[in-house]
Amino acid sequence: MRTAKLPSFEGGSVWLVGAGPGDPGLLTLHALNGLSQADVVLYDALVDESILALAGPQAACVYAGKRSGDGATQSEITKRMIAFARAGKRVLRLKGGDPFVFGRGGEEALALVSAGIPFRIVPGITAGIGGLAYAGIPATHRDINHVVSFVTGHMAGGDVPDGVNWRALGEASPVIVIYMGLKHIGRLADEIVAAGRSPDEAVAIISNATTERQFVLETTLARARLDAAASGIPGPALIVVGDAVRLRPGLDWLSAALHGRKLDADPLGNARSRKRRAASVP
Amino acid sequence: MRTAKLPSFEGGSVWLVGAGPGDPGLLTLHALNGLSQADVVLYDALVDESILALAGPQAACVYAGKRSGDGATQSEITKRMIAFARAGKRVLRLKGGDPFVFGRGGEEALALVSAGIPFRIVPGITAGIGGLAYAGIPATHRDINHVVSFVTGHMAGGDVPDGVNWRALGEASPVIVIYMGLKHIGRLADEIVAAGRSPDEAVAIISNATTERQFVLETTLARARLDAAASGIPGPALIVVGDAVRLRPGLDWLSAALHGRKLDADPLGNARSRKRRAASVP
Repeated sequence: MRTAKLPSFEGGSVWLVGAGPGDPGLLTLHALNGLSQADVVLYDALVDESILALAGPQAACVYAGKRSGDGATQSEITKRMIAFARAGKRVLRLKGGDPFVFGRGGEEALALVSAGIPFRIVPGITAGIGGLAYAGIPATHRDINHVVSFVTGHMAGGDVPDGVNWRALGEASPVIVIYMGLKHIGRLADEIVAAGRSPDEAVAIISNATTERQFVLETTLARARLDAAASGIPGPALIVVGDAVRLRPGLDWLSAALHGRKLDADPLGNARSRKRRAASVP
Repeated sequence: MRTAKLPSFEGGSVWLVGAGPGDPGLLTLHALNGLSQADVVLYDALVDESILALAGPQAACVYAGKRSGDGATQSEITKRMIAFARAGKRVLRLKGGDPFVFGRGGEEALALVSAGIPFRIVPGITAGIGGLAYAGIPATHRDINHVVSFVTGHMAGGDVPDGVNWRALGEASPVIVIYMGLKHIGRLADEIVAAGRSPDEAVAIISNATTERQFVLETTLARARLDAAASGIPGPALIVVGDAVRLRPGLDWLSAALHGRKLDADPLGNARSRKRRAASVP
């Protein structure tokens, strides 16, 4: 296999690397190149084991997950990262998804600047795009939306963020993707209905996106809280609100490949309704 | 180097693959695996040559770029894709960025369903996240935004999309990332100011993100049109609006590595203003 020319990982530096949503095939070449050279891999709770298995034999993999609501641990992670780099190690800080999408990568990078440690950002596939794609839901589709918005449903303290203007978001964004919102799904759905969206609007909840444990629940804004509770769907999960979810019967390529799901070429019924209109012309 | 277990590419099927923003190191393992097996690579105008160079020696690379405003060519691309697959080829449809983020991947996939051709979606790093990261601009940052929105500034017909509620978007999303909006930048900036955002708000225009030709222009909403024209910055370009741009002096790791740019650990001046407040206590 041909491969790209990739940079060498200097001792005493840190790479902040996005691991993508879970499937190791969604790692970037930069991420794999970094894992093969790293002396230390400081990894988050959301990183799949199959990805850690790609680190070189020399790498020490160190768990650096945060406990919800524990602000102290973020500064501990930063301190460890800096200590390893000061000891001359190649330090790979591995985060689920993308380090700059609700990943606190900016904060960690600024701490490195403060400590005078060189760093590189390696973007990853964010779950709100790649995780949706594995569920057969496009983040954008020409018939549906020119805007897609990503919002976090969960703060470091465990609560819903209070700075979000849900009314404006509901008006602005036909498709809304909520990260880490499962715990508060009822409240989030209520906010979006209060913004003027129909209670019958389609919602998908995607758990463990792109992994073998991927589970997708289709529901509506009105039923989301009860359906989520009844299904026992586990976190971490993405919530998608909008008509993009209605494309799933056409685009669920993964279920077609794994379970022989028959796909519908006209999931929004556009061609069928054109035919009906044509048929009703006298 | 260890590598992940990756799927084999079946003849007669199509993979819709995101090539990422430009840097070949941002390809996924699935994308490289697909390129190494494909018989035909149907590629878009936005795909960098260094990425095509990674296709296997057996692959025929066929240009399938669209001319702006030419609706016919989209259906020609689809027809060619289907014809190659029906001839039993492994067809890799390669798109800049991510196929489901303003990439018309959903439309092409539904055409494949209609023709009874199996397909796989391979997500890519979208420029609005990965391109920003290479310019030192995080799509989200805890002090700045819990919402980030992506919007297209350019329709198939070449005009600004008319379905966008700019007022609501301006209220909902502290950081707005506009794809393909350079041609209409003055009008887009006016819409965002009319939504109530300050004319002095920071804007970055990122051209040829993540490639060797990457060029970043920092400006404001009020000055964006004139500064873009004066700089002669070429498309394709991303436009980022919001305080995330103000983090660039702290997070521009690429200029630090290539040109020795000295980074500022406190780009928003938070620590400095805390010190000032503390100093003013009698």
